Amino acid sequence: MSPRNTIAESRRTRQRIIDRSVAIASVDGLAGLTIGRLAIDLSMSKAGVLGHFGTKEALQLAALERASAMFTSLVWEPAAALPPGLTRLQAVCEAWIAFLDTERAEFPGGCLFTAASVEFDGHTGPVRDTVARLLTVWRRRLVSELRYAVEAGELPSGADPEQIVFELVGLYLNLNQSIQLFGDTTAPARTRHALARLLGTDQPRAD
Amino acid sequence: MSPRNTIAESRRTRQRIIDRSVAIASVDGLAGLTIGRLAIDLSMSKAGVLGHFGTKEALQLAALERASAMFTSLVWEPAAALPPGLTRLQAVCEAWIAFLDTERAEFPGGCLFTAASVEFDGHTGPVRDTVARLLTVWRRRLVSELRYAVEAGELPSGADPEQIVFELVGLYLNLNQSIQLFGDTTAPARTRHALARLLGTDQPRAD
Repeated sequence: MSPRNTIAESRRTRQRIIDRSVAIASVDGLAGLTIGRLAIDLSMSKAGVLGHFGTKEALQLAALERASAMFTSLVWEPAAALPPGLTRLQAVCEAWIAFLDTERAEFPGGCLFTAASVEFDGHTGPVRDTVARLLTVWRRRLVSELRYAVEAGELPSGADPEQIVFELVGLYLNLNQSIQLFGDTTAPARTRHALARLLGTDQPRAD
Repeated sequence: MSPRNTIAESRRTRQRIIDRSVAIASVDGLAGLTIGRLAIDLSMSKAGVLGHFGTKEALQLAALERASAMFTSLVWEPAAALPPGLTRLQAVCEAWIAFLDTERAEFPGGCLFTAASVEFDGHTGPVRDTVARLLTVWRRRLVSELRYAVEAGELPSGADPEQIVFELVGLYLNLNQSIQLFGDTTAPARTRHALARLLGTDQPRAD
């Protein structure tokens, strides 16, 4: 095998390890992500897995970054070119419901960030910091979309973007729990209903 | 030691094991609750811990039931004698904020039910079933309080108790995440603000 092929092969193996890591962490949490389990699942040697990720923590961080990239590509990017403000926010909210609602092969156990948040919030270190950073970036993006909506007059001038995002995030945390723990098929409709009220889109615009 | 003293001593040891289990599970999840760790923390032999709880699962179930009893005594019972409907619900909601807000020695890592839900929602078995049952009982209690409020005319007749509880539970899931992951001191006020809007108590009653 030429060196170039070896590098390409090594990249593919690394990708396979990360894909599998995301699926395992979705069901069993980042703590369930062990070198030994990956080796068994991927029919590799432990040394083979360790060669790509020196530590369990490096693997956990790679899984989080991958899950974040998947979230961005499924929830944010399809809406990115839409007009900012309520139009784009509503498209993002709908894609976010689909992200949690669909039984995705990539996230068989539900939202990885919610799981990681609960798992690491009692600890310090790079994994907790990464979870907090990724969730903060997302909350800020939502706040900035709402600020635009207020400035554009799509929401009343007294609307508080931070408050709306606080309530909005709660809806998705409960959507995830309702789907994953209770298999509640009414939860997406309940989320949409609450969003319409929260964003004022359930009422005719006074313009 | 008389047999009676032995029984009393055994009960106390069992209580100590469960108390410690709740604290460990609050930080590290129910999966972090191992016989070995309890033995070290409580200066007991593994056999001593195992004598009280034959399996890790029995220990997890006991920790959940204890946490549930603590939640009931701190959040429900102080309000139980109040008039049903909005009055009692508001008292419960305020106690629930305090339950999550205070840095309780009993729950150093935040809401045990939220953690257990995320941890076990990808699995089957008695632990998942117990988490789902306890959370369902609580949601039903909230729904029944809201039904009373609707029947008593404290909420508009079109108000949907199930929908309100869906949104209300989301607020508390985010309150827990905001406190535990972000140390966000504004989260209790944001929760109160959202509750007032959700329960219509931010507007003068039309009666």
